[in-house]
Amino acid sequence: MRISDIYASTSTDYETKIKGWIKSVRSMKKTIFFDVSDGSTFRNIQVVAEKNANSAKIDYGSSVEISGKLTKAPSGQLEIQSNDIKIIGSCDVTQGYPFVPRTKYEPQELREYLHFRPRTTSFSSMLRIRDRTSQYIHDFFHEEKFTGIHTPVLTSNDCEGAGEIFTVLPESKEIIKEMQKENKTETEAFFDSKAFLTVSGQFHLEVMARALNNVYSFGPVFRAENSKSRFHLSEFYMAEAEVAFLNRMEDLFILIEKLVKYVTRKVLNHHDKEISNYRKLLSLPYVNFSKIVDQPYTVMNLEDACAVLERNGMPAFEGRHLSKEHELFLVKYNNGVPIFLIDWPQENKPFYVKVDSTTNKAAAVDLLFPEVGELCGGSLREDNYDLLKQKLIESDLLAKLNWYLDLRKFGNIPTGGFGMGFERYLKVLMGTPNIKDTVPFPRWPHSCLL
Amino acid sequence: MRISDIYASTSTDYETKIKGWIKSVRSMKKTIFFDVSDGSTFRNIQVVAEKNANSAKIDYGSSVEISGKLTKAPSGQLEIQSNDIKIIGSCDVTQGYPFVPRTKYEPQELREYLHFRPRTTSFSSMLRIRDRTSQYIHDFFHEEKFTGIHTPVLTSNDCEGAGEIFTVLPESKEIIKEMQKENKTETEAFFDSKAFLTVSGQFHLEVMARALNNVYSFGPVFRAENSKSRFHLSEFYMAEAEVAFLNRMEDLFILIEKLVKYVTRKVLNHHDKEISNYRKLLSLPYVNFSKIVDQPYTVMNLEDACAVLERNGMPAFEGRHLSKEHELFLVKYNNGVPIFLIDWPQENKPFYVKVDSTTNKAAAVDLLFPEVGELCGGSLREDNYDLLKQKLIESDLLAKLNWYLDLRKFGNIPTGGFGMGFERYLKVLMGTPNIKDTVPFPRWPHSCLL
Repeated sequence: MRISDIYASTSTDYETKIKGWIKSVRSMKKTIFFDVSDGSTFRNIQVVAEKNANSAKIDYGSSVEISGKLTKAPSGQLEIQSNDIKIIGSCDVTQGYPFVPRTKYEPQELREYLHFRPRTTSFSSMLRIRDRTSQYIHDFFHEEKFTGIHTPVLTSNDCEGAGEIFTVLPESKEIIKEMQKENKTETEAFFDSKAFLTVSGQFHLEVMARALNNVYSFGPVFRAENSKSRFHLSEFYMAEAEVAFLNRMEDLFILIEKLVKYVTRKVLNHHDKEISNYRKLLSLPYVNFSKIVDQPYTVMNLEDACAVLERNGMPAFEGRHLSKEHELFLVKYNNGVPIFLIDWPQENKPFYVKVDSTTNKAAAVDLLFPEVGELCGGSLREDNYDLLKQKLIESDLLAKLNWYLDLRKFGNIPTGGFGMGFERYLKVLMGTPNIKDTVPFPRWPHSCLL
Repeated sequence: MRISDIYASTSTDYETKIKGWIKSVRSMKKTIFFDVSDGSTFRNIQVVAEKNANSAKIDYGSSVEISGKLTKAPSGQLEIQSNDIKIIGSCDVTQGYPFVPRTKYEPQELREYLHFRPRTTSFSSMLRIRDRTSQYIHDFFHEEKFTGIHTPVLTSNDCEGAGEIFTVLPESKEIIKEMQKENKTETEAFFDSKAFLTVSGQFHLEVMARALNNVYSFGPVFRAENSKSRFHLSEFYMAEAEVAFLNRMEDLFILIEKLVKYVTRKVLNHHDKEISNYRKLLSLPYVNFSKIVDQPYTVMNLEDACAVLERNGMPAFEGRHLSKEHELFLVKYNNGVPIFLIDWPQENKPFYVKVDSTTNKAAAVDLLFPEVGELCGGSLREDNYDLLKQKLIESDLLAKLNWYLDLRKFGNIPTGGFGMGFERYLKVLMGTPNIKDTVPFPRWPHSCLL
């Protein structure tokens, strides 16, 4: 039986059997009390047993099989009264287990033991909620009739301008030698072209939106940036959507806001206790999610935002570039309500962003959020063949992206879309100080453990 | 309105508006008939319009917006009678569009135009069903109370012995120079260690099963193999599961069979018409899925399997190695019913597979399937600390995999798990001759388009 099922049921006084790991032990004169977790919930169940020769083996971290009677203590607490305790795997802290009982570890200490970190109550909560939140994202898009697309990790496209990129090649020198054609380099040997790790599935989704209508992807993307920030990872998840026949920025705002509110409501409805417990364990402040789920988000143009910043003594950088601090200040100034920041100068945004013919601005939006600043970035895509061709020529990308231009030549439609950084979203939801602690196996500059 | 909604409803004789792409045109003296697809379903809807000056632009491949009245023709066929047709994007086949009306293309021709391939009826069906099938896999594991884990794409672990592996490094020489420490090579510069693309999430799931109980992953894995086969890709999806407290091979069979049957039933219940249509378009034979969804799968030991092969004039290779042909023959011999092939010699299976102490065989299983041969591979994992340590020493892997060995040292539990090749499963389901045609953007030796 799972501990989650025990807590989900109202009945007691039945024989049960659980398997799990011992979280803490309290030894009395004649009895021993210990808490067991089995990973099915953040809640432990207390076991009470009479002391015997075996009791010495009941140790923090050990895996156990417990048979006994589930009862309700006078305090209302559920407990298992057991005289049948099997130790499956012992856990001798003197043999090098990195955790000892009743000790709090700093996140950076836990990150040195990625193979044991999931055994902490707080991080196992993160993993369960990460899984559920992922599912809510899929649910949202499916309810909205988007088709999910597995956009590729490997791509020959290196020109989305979303920062530095990783290259991929076979580890085996023999494979390279065997496959390398005469006019190709070693990094081109396997695929006849260089292959990179994707930084975004947008271009691939633009292909799909022109056949399948609305599409989304949810998967890993990569950045080879030497960043030491609490907001960046080398490998992270993005939820990306591309909407077919989209002409208006407003429709993009509506979709983004709907997604964020849908997922947040679902998580809060189903996992509020687990999140509260997580925040308590990490001594994180309580967060008022009503700003995120109940209020309409603010639309603000960049000029107004820059004026606000200037008035408050923190002017934007040359060329209206905003830092994380600028972003966070704006949200704070807006009373914690998320902001759709619009009307960007063309030069701040990539070549594929549509230019608004009346304002001459880039039809792009950044969604600014509490705690993380930019959570989503989106835009209408340039759907005018001649304008896009001109931009590709100016950026010297025409040869590489002829296929992308061709999408505008044959049965073209207007589209727009956005990407949401999944770990940044989790960081807001859970209040996690460092984004590295939202991922099962984080990868960042100088670290790729396991 | 989506075409799928039109077909889902029983009402007619209302005004509607659709947007989509023209699939075929039949021009009469006074009227023009054409079929429109909008990607929401494999079914087109017929539009009837009176001919006018604009009609010449109603062209194969163009994107259109149609307003008109939905009616039911005497034949029962739904059609839209429209006198309001807007061409959104034209499609001039003389300008280089690779497809012309009423022409059948070979799969390898379509693969040269990955950016237009999704517009074919058959491939868009593949993509929709791929999405739904992915969701059924998530649904199955969630219903069975598994927690989904995003196992990493980047890993420093290169030693699972599952074939050739890709290495990753930053494209930018400056980043490498900036980050490279004194005692590190260029490929170690970014992460302080070599980083590879994952070939399996198994080891990472073994970490998780020892904290969260049953876990699964569903995501991309990679092989740098120079294979020309119809069954292999360089990037493909695997559904992998790791079951906590698992002692018996039989429990693994039950889980695998339950997964495959659950997903197959869901797909057949919801998408049988689309699959039939796909098979018709590709002139593929009808398949009797009752062998897969209704019959109990066969458990066969390798010795018996080899005897069958020998009797039928196709002996297994030295060391009891089976080829694809051997696998397919066995399933055929078994009347098309899938086979759990067990009792493998230790030397045929990787170091992490548990050895059965009574038979001295590897506690591993291959699930053999019609059309693809091996669909799943699974095993009990060696959970004995001393035996595993011995094997790691013999394979010279102890230094690299000390963390993996440590999982057996502290709070250890028995686990077992399996992986299912998702594209192979789709290949069976849809009957697709080449696995490259089950993936939105296939990557294989000498090809990484877009």
